[in-house]
Amino acid sequence: MTAFSTSEAIASNPLPPSDSRQRVSQFLQTLQDRICNGLEKIDGGATFQEDKWEREEGGGGRSRVIREGNLFEQGGVNFSEVWGSDLPPSILVQRPEAAGHRFYATGTSMVLHPRNPYIPTVHLNYRYFEAGPVWWFGGGIDLTPYYPFAEDAAHFHKTLKQACDRHHSEYYPTFKLWCDEYFYLKHRGETRGVGGIFFDYQDGQGVLYRGPDGQGHAAKHSQQVGTVRERTWEDLFAFVQDCGNAFLPAYVPIAEGRQGTAYGDRERNFQLYRRGRYVEFNLVYDRGTIFGLQTNGRTESILMSLPPLVRWEYGYTPEPNTPEAELYERFLKPQDWANWVPTA
Amino acid sequence: MTAFSTSEAIASNPLPPSDSRQRVSQFLQTLQDRICNGLEKIDGGATFQEDKWEREEGGGGRSRVIREGNLFEQGGVNFSEVWGSDLPPSILVQRPEAAGHRFYATGTSMVLHPRNPYIPTVHLNYRYFEAGPVWWFGGGIDLTPYYPFAEDAAHFHKTLKQACDRHHSEYYPTFKLWCDEYFYLKHRGETRGVGGIFFDYQDGQGVLYRGPDGQGHAAKHSQQVGTVRERTWEDLFAFVQDCGNAFLPAYVPIAEGRQGTAYGDRERNFQLYRRGRYVEFNLVYDRGTIFGLQTNGRTESILMSLPPLVRWEYGYTPEPNTPEAELYERFLKPQDWANWVPTA
Repeated sequence: MTAFSTSEAIASNPLPPSDSRQRVSQFLQTLQDRICNGLEKIDGGATFQEDKWEREEGGGGRSRVIREGNLFEQGGVNFSEVWGSDLPPSILVQRPEAAGHRFYATGTSMVLHPRNPYIPTVHLNYRYFEAGPVWWFGGGIDLTPYYPFAEDAAHFHKTLKQACDRHHSEYYPTFKLWCDEYFYLKHRGETRGVGGIFFDYQDGQGVLYRGPDGQGHAAKHSQQVGTVRERTWEDLFAFVQDCGNAFLPAYVPIAEGRQGTAYGDRERNFQLYRRGRYVEFNLVYDRGTIFGLQTNGRTESILMSLPPLVRWEYGYTPEPNTPEAELYERFLKPQDWANWVPTA
Repeated sequence: MTAFSTSEAIASNPLPPSDSRQRVSQFLQTLQDRICNGLEKIDGGATFQEDKWEREEGGGGRSRVIREGNLFEQGGVNFSEVWGSDLPPSILVQRPEAAGHRFYATGTSMVLHPRNPYIPTVHLNYRYFEAGPVWWFGGGIDLTPYYPFAEDAAHFHKTLKQACDRHHSEYYPTFKLWCDEYFYLKHRGETRGVGGIFFDYQDGQGVLYRGPDGQGHAAKHSQQVGTVRERTWEDLFAFVQDCGNAFLPAYVPIAEGRQGTAYGDRERNFQLYRRGRYVEFNLVYDRGTIFGLQTNGRTESILMSLPPLVRWEYGYTPEPNTPEAELYERFLKPQDWANWVPTA
């Protein structure tokens, strides 16, 4: 490749293959299937119920929910594929080239609320957009524990890092940072959990990080991220597939490992209280949720991410030297979990 | 009064008295005291606990919470009085004359979550602003029943209408409409409850209604509202005092009347489910909550409005011909409650 063609590739987005939409959509549906199968297996009680739905303006989806299982109090795994004439202004600001073009968007998203407070809540979302001359991949996965187990956070991050490292050494550190910054509750001064990876607007161009997201504490990190060589559509699709496929190995061992741990009212109450933070994040900050609600999204599918039972308590603070306090002090702040080593 | 001085009074905001801040603040603190006393009396079990707090940028408040009472599962009544150098942009859009001036704001707000599902949740907020050449009053009160009792909705609205009618015949119809439009969940196609009254930016000028609020279904009503003669600061302060004082007579008879009604799991589950709508409204739409969270408000006081226990359920719809269905069909849509008459 000559220097000329390299700089041209950076300046203009390489074309996707002619069957790009079909391939991504197919992958995301298969991912939904495989995730649901894997989760039913570890639950051992309930199964997913599916609702197929159509969107008036074009497209539709299949929403799947598992309820009152052995392991999962509630979990939702959604696939959707939609198209229309105008992307929302919030996206056009980031991708002005898409203005005036019809768009296509497909994605798979998931939130799981386990019953046992020792098992973390987990969220996953991978998505793909095309609009006129532009296309991009986005998504991520993040873990929200209620009780502090460093080995769980480390396992989760190490698994994601392995998937990322197969594609580019800059991916994990950049997208881990982005995740910490995006899933941040400014009004609480807390991360949502121990994070994971998050990325958006990944196309053939060399810019990895499109933040900061305006969620508060991003500015100090903005020096740390850079650009990489240009990437093809195939590079990025392969990366997203690896990320999606990393979910079960990242989460299942944690869920299975904690499933048998006995708990009482104290742990259950703390779990219900902490679930309130999930609601606060999704309704106050999450751009996908807010956009979906304020436009013509399918409300029940969007709000499937909310926990089945939640508690708020005025003025709660954890007692010092308890597991609950350790969660606040160590797990609700960004940490380098991928390099965590057990202390002897 | 000559025609000249009348039109001048409409064009420019009449001055408040020199002790305006002190008088409003005093009234709002007394209102907080009287409301708390009245609620403790009907609860008969728990009492309000107070937290005094100061705001770094200027001012402070006193937050009071009642918990695990006989009647109230949780209730919060806040008073605050704050000042600073810049009003937020969202307010400056409505009051550009305030730009570049220091502001003063004081308010009393309240949300009550009763335990018995037959007793409605209720919200009240009255506030006063000054900034440079402008001042205004805002606020309102609205009722959110879980079970449909037309006589309760009618009593609430008739009591508010009486308070309004003592000041201007246009107040109740205009502010009732504004309330229906503001407390509207677009993504659910539901009002939050049976409404009440809501108003904002009430100053000496003749414009009553500053909406629509962009919450969806306001446009069709925008013809119905007009202007009134100019009003003095004293007129409006007297009106707001009457509104505040109308709370106990509007709500206490409803709470006392339903307190003894027995309920079971069905009613409790429906109450917890419907409380989810309260959370959705406050976190997705309520400008005060969102602004408070995204700036430097006292989070615990702002989120005191959230219910102590909440349930979400994917795909819930009430069974036909049940009280729950009647709530949706008749009570979560604007109705002319003030003119309701019992059918023989």
